[in-house]
Amino acid sequence: MNSHVSVKDEARPASPFLQRAWYAAALSSEVGPTELFHRKLLNVNVLIYRKQDGTPVAMRDRCPHRFAPMHLGKRQGDEVSCLYHALRFNSEGQCVHNPHGSGAIPKAAKIRAYPLIEKYGYIWIWMADEDPDPSLLPDYTPLEEGHPNGVAHTYMYMNANYELIIDNVMDLSHIDHVHGEIITTRGQLSPVVPKVIEGERSINARWEWKQTPAMHIFSKFMPDTEAEARQFFDITWRQPANIQLSVGAIQGTGNLDLKDCVGQYDLHTTTPETETTTHYWFSTRRNHIVEDGEFNAFKIKAMHEAFVTEDGPIIEETQKEMGTSDFFSLNPVLMSNDVAPVKVRRLLHKLIEAERGA
Amino acid sequence: MNSHVSVKDEARPASPFLQRAWYAAALSSEVGPTELFHRKLLNVNVLIYRKQDGTPVAMRDRCPHRFAPMHLGKRQGDEVSCLYHALRFNSEGQCVHNPHGSGAIPKAAKIRAYPLIEKYGYIWIWMADEDPDPSLLPDYTPLEEGHPNGVAHTYMYMNANYELIIDNVMDLSHIDHVHGEIITTRGQLSPVVPKVIEGERSINARWEWKQTPAMHIFSKFMPDTEAEARQFFDITWRQPANIQLSVGAIQGTGNLDLKDCVGQYDLHTTTPETETTTHYWFSTRRNHIVEDGEFNAFKIKAMHEAFVTEDGPIIEETQKEMGTSDFFSLNPVLMSNDVAPVKVRRLLHKLIEAERGA
Amino acid sequence: MNSHVSVKDEARPASPFLQRAWYAAALSSEVGPTELFHRKLLNVNVLIYRKQDGTPVAMRDRCPHRFAPMHLGKRQGDEVSCLYHALRFNSEGQCVHNPHGSGAIPKAAKIRAYPLIEKYGYIWIWMADEDPDPSLLPDYTPLEEGHPNGVAHTYMYMNANYELIIDNVMDLSHIDHVHGEIITTRGQLSPVVPKVIEGERSINARWEWKQTPAMHIFSKFMPDTEAEARQFFDITWRQPANIQLSVGAIQGTGNLDLKDCVGQYDLHTTTPETETTTHYWFSTRRNHIVEDGEFNAFKIKAMHEAFVTEDGPIIEETQKEMGTSDFFSLNPVLMSNDVAPVKVRRLLHKLIEAERGA
Repeated sequence: MNSHVSVKDEARPASPFLQRAWYAAALSSEVGPTELFHRKLLNVNVLIYRKQDGTPVAMRDRCPHRFAPMHLGKRQGDEVSCLYHALRFNSEGQCVHNPHGSGAIPKAAKIRAYPLIEKYGYIWIWMADEDPDPSLLPDYTPLEEGHPNGVAHTYMYMNANYELIIDNVMDLSHIDHVHGEIITTRGQLSPVVPKVIEGERSINARWEWKQTPAMHIFSKFMPDTEAEARQFFDITWRQPANIQLSVGAIQGTGNLDLKDCVGQYDLHTTTPETETTTHYWFSTRRNHIVEDGEFNAFKIKAMHEAFVTEDGPIIEETQKEMGTSDFFSLNPVLMSNDVAPVKVRRLLHKLIEAERGA
Repeated sequence: MNSHVSVKDEARPASPFLQRAWYAAALSSEVGPTELFHRKLLNVNVLIYRKQDGTPVAMRDRCPHRFAPMHLGKRQGDEVSCLYHALRFNSEGQCVHNPHGSGAIPKAAKIRAYPLIEKYGYIWIWMADEDPDPSLLPDYTPLEEGHPNGVAHTYMYMNANYELIIDNVMDLSHIDHVHGEIITTRGQLSPVVPKVIEGERSINARWEWKQTPAMHIFSKFMPDTEAEARQFFDITWRQPANIQLSVGAIQGTGNLDLKDCVGQYDLHTTTPETETTTHYWFSTRRNHIVEDGEFNAFKIKAMHEAFVTEDGPIIEETQKEMGTSDFFSLNPVLMSNDVAPVKVRRLLHKLIEAERGA
Repeated sequence: MNSHVSVKDEARPASPFLQRAWYAAALSSEVGPTELFHRKLLNVNVLIYRKQDGTPVAMRDRCPHRFAPMHLGKRQGDEVSCLYHALRFNSEGQCVHNPHGSGAIPKAAKIRAYPLIEKYGYIWIWMADEDPDPSLLPDYTPLEEGHPNGVAHTYMYMNANYELIIDNVMDLSHIDHVHGEIITTRGQLSPVVPKVIEGERSINARWEWKQTPAMHIFSKFMPDTEAEARQFFDITWRQPANIQLSVGAIQGTGNLDLKDCVGQYDLHTTTPETETTTHYWFSTRRNHIVEDGEFNAFKIKAMHEAFVTEDGPIIEETQKEMGTSDFFSLNPVLMSNDVAPVKVRRLLHKLIEAERGA
């Protein structure tokens, strides 16, 4: 984590989002070694780049002089200069060079920097005014352990509020109805009422069921590829917008966990770009044929396609239909399958309220 | 007319439009036998489909569970299920199947259905909260009577408020200036002050004039194709947004009506999509060479083109210039040719005010 | 200057711009002899055309009858008739023909006309309600004097507030950092603190510096094309949005002015289309090889490209980043190079305030 310059951020808009939290800013692979990468996060344009030693740094993508975007500028070692009038800033957002007049550096010439943590294949950003709390980044260590061909990541841009995406993953019953052959649960999931466990900052849900044959992504690894399998989903939302999902299938004896089952350990994480647009990432590590790079590439492409072509239109069309109306104000008809997503919405809003009240 | 489930429609936006009225929702030919047709009407997304016996039904295009558009879903007999979580609704909007948990159907799981009448080649919709009043649908029986090759219909989408389109038709003097050879009135219409008759829910206007030769669409059916003809327009606006137009030409003796003249019986009808966009339909039944299907197809295409390329740009550019300003607030300079459209605007707003006050 | 009909302009939106001023409406060359040219200026759609004697006239681009844009209409001699219902107006905006009913011309049938002055290669417009004051048009006579191949003009459309464009020109230090070979100042300009002179309605700034070799556009005209040259910029903003810029280079003795130097006399002028979009024109008259038409064409093309591809993206991206926030409310970090643009912003706003208070 890099330290950051304390700059009073007058120009930052009020946020409807949880502030004291680590949001995914980018996949590690999205930010090249010399690139001035930029992305809007929580309504703020952010510049991200790697120092020469590879450490990522982030700062507001706005020169404090005349507000030109810094990503249009130029790298000079670990520093970046604005294209417009060449004020140069170090990686902590402090102005270190002014080519104008006497060259004196104005006291206020600082850019708000944001603490980052690079972990689990992601660059995570802390955008709150308060000091960053590394303990608030959940533990997704399994993504980092094991053969590199056993893990894959993908990025999707969604024209929808991030909570609609969280709803989608927290209520996995939709798989019965939305998804095609690749991950179909053959109608066996909807009747199951998941067990839900509420934590202080997390919601866990678990489904167990049988289907014949197993999910397509697992069936060919079963002893009998055509026979019934026992399956499980175990998912945990953690603030602000992460869902860890484990899924597996087994035939015969054994526990419904990733130790005994053929399965995978996934992460769905989202970061609001604005109230109605979202950065959405998906990571998956499987526990079988982990050295097969070709299969790895094929599978992440297939899952990316499933999310983009099957979930995507429903979520984006729902966004259009809802507009900026509050979900609960529209009187949704809620059922047994809504327990987990509704608990997430309520807990998230409780955390946001608590933060505002503090 | 189908009956409808009474659902309190909390999520429906306040409307600037007349509610207790039948609006055209679609041409009969626009809604195929198995299609989940959808269209935004009066700011509300509406699903329309035909039951297996052909009867059209309409309901809000929004699942009451998580607000996914129903038109993304699937037909099952006369029922439709939501794509997202497969709640299934009958044609009256009542949920009849819930695949989740115990399968109990939540009491609130209803979709607002809208009464429809299919008549005159159109599907008409009633979107008011009050019970539908079939007597409020005007009588356009002539559209239904006669040879099928004597009638034609067309649909146009306009980036303009519906009242600008009504203005256009109610003041036919524009034909002298806007339209090309196909329906030119050769400058003879503007000097004529129409006779205007006000009804309780209608405004009628009538022009009579002579031109040489007759309108292009009629001249070839005159005894002397090059000679002067007597002509008439007789138009009647009826709430909420229908204009029936009769037009004909004659040489020699005879009355200026469709019995004696070569002429046609038309309907212009509009339904607001939003305050600044409109669904616009045109129907025409002629009283000459009524069996000629080739001529029928040629003529509706030509008239569609005339509306789209000649009236369309003026109306849409006027919309841009006016924005959402109220017409009268802009102090229009009104003249003899404005009597009919101004009376329509005033009567329509009187009806809307009365409805709100009721 | 043409006289204008006094029409109370009820429908005109309140303006955030200085009103009592001459704004560029178009280059003389933009308005052809028979064309109905139209452009939005200060949020108002304006029609401009030339009478048969070539004199340009301007009026609101809106028929007072039903608000159709007049530019869709037809020229008839010095008059213009509306396409929609053929009301015809003379060049002062007075209705002179009504083809409807008795043909009486309604008293209110007038279009607001705007006084114009055609000078310096431009058509200038006065949009205030008060009588036009020709003395408020600055004197740019040098643009009109000399060989026709020594002067050139160009038009650019910018998705940015006009003050961001004025900022750009008033702080020429950006040339060191933004511009490529054609006008590079080789890092010599930023250290120079310009001399700034404040007038009652003008701000002047002057830079003097040396560079090796001279600016590319001048170096080939120097005695020693590779050697050091003395250079100057002298720029004057005048209300509402004009910047006259003189620039030159010299080797050996002589004054830093356009009499002694190889140089050019330029005009940058902007007119707000809306709060976030701007019409931007640039004119330049050089004092060397003034008869070379090929060089003239090449040079204006190169400078146009430099503004559009080098300044343009910075200014437009800054607009996006700032949105509609007030510049000073964002707490810009201001330096020695900002003296001139900041004085312009303050003086312009003082003039706007004074006008409102008057």
